[in-house]
Amino acid sequence: MTPEDVERQEVEETSPEADELEALRNENEELIATLQRLQADFDNYRKRAARDQDALVARAGERIVKELLPILDDLERAIEAADQHEEAKLEDGVKLVHRQLEQLLEKEGLAPVETDGKFDPYVHEALLTQPSTADEGSVIEVLQKGYRLGDRVLRPARVVVAGPKEEDGPSGHEA
Amino acid sequence: MTPEDVERQEVEETSPEADELEALRNENEELIATLQRLQADFDNYRKRAARDQDALVARAGERIVKELLPILDDLERAIEAADQHEEAKLEDGVKLVHRQLEQLLEKEGLAPVETDGKFDPYVHEALLTQPSTADEGSVIEVLQKGYRLGDRVLRPARVVVAGPKEEDGPSGHEA
Repeated sequence: MTPEDVERQEVEETSPEADELEALRNENEELIATLQRLQADFDNYRKRAARDQDALVARAGERIVKELLPILDDLERAIEAADQHEEAKLEDGVKLVHRQLEQLLEKEGLAPVETDGKFDPYVHEALLTQPSTADEGSVIEVLQKGYRLGDRVLRPARVVVAGPKEEDGPSGHEA
Repeated sequence: MTPEDVERQEVEETSPEADELEALRNENEELIATLQRLQADFDNYRKRAARDQDALVARAGERIVKELLPILDDLERAIEAADQHEEAKLEDGVKLVHRQLEQLLEKEGLAPVETDGKFDPYVHEALLTQPSTADEGSVIEVLQKGYRLGDRVLRPARVVVAGPKEEDGPSGHEA
């Protein structure tokens, strides 16, 4: 031991702050190590979350694609029936395909937009206004069905709306 | 100042460790604050990632559902044609729907499984083995088309496979 070492040791032993210093230094080291570990965990989590999301999106698409396969099969069978001029079979096939597709879409949360009653700009798109015996502002014809998916309007219904009421007869009646 | 304050101040001023103690205490506090902030960020990130994933899955489904709407429309038009006994229109409608659905699925990455050639257990499912003039082990009939999505087999092709070759004629020929 050099005289300096001895002196330092004496200072450490005699100083009341020496223990606290030592404890603080240890605590500091531990905090830094914890911080680095947490930072590394966070980084890894971020990377994994990005990968998981890509996989999830792919799987969400895959699920629906898989459910569409039997519909594609039945559609091909209907076309075979058409090629063989089996009209009844073709018609049945088309109706089956339609029912299947409707059920699949319903299961995904799709629901038709209501068109009975008053024009509603949130779910309807007015393509025409026509004089009518119906109440002014009511939907009198649906040109294209509209659909909601859950809370959202996926496609508004394209409709014809009744204009001012005709008092003199049903000549302007459209729907 | 009380006598104690004076004494403490003297200790701090005279001790060589006082500054380091003070610095370490400050550093410690900062480390703890940083750690708490990082932990809170991490927690928030985790919660947001879970929410984002739900939204992503919903949106992935929504995209395909939206693309299926025109197909549903055309299917409904085909059924109307059938109801009005417009056979040519019905047939055209079905073919249009089939083409649209095929294109949608192709865009999603769907591709038919090849069935020309040898039976391949990775992409084919053998439902029957039949004596045939074709090479033994080759696919001689497809009972249900198979599909891949990207690298994965979404559905194997269900096929009939040629058994041992018949030397005495084409009597067992099926496909």
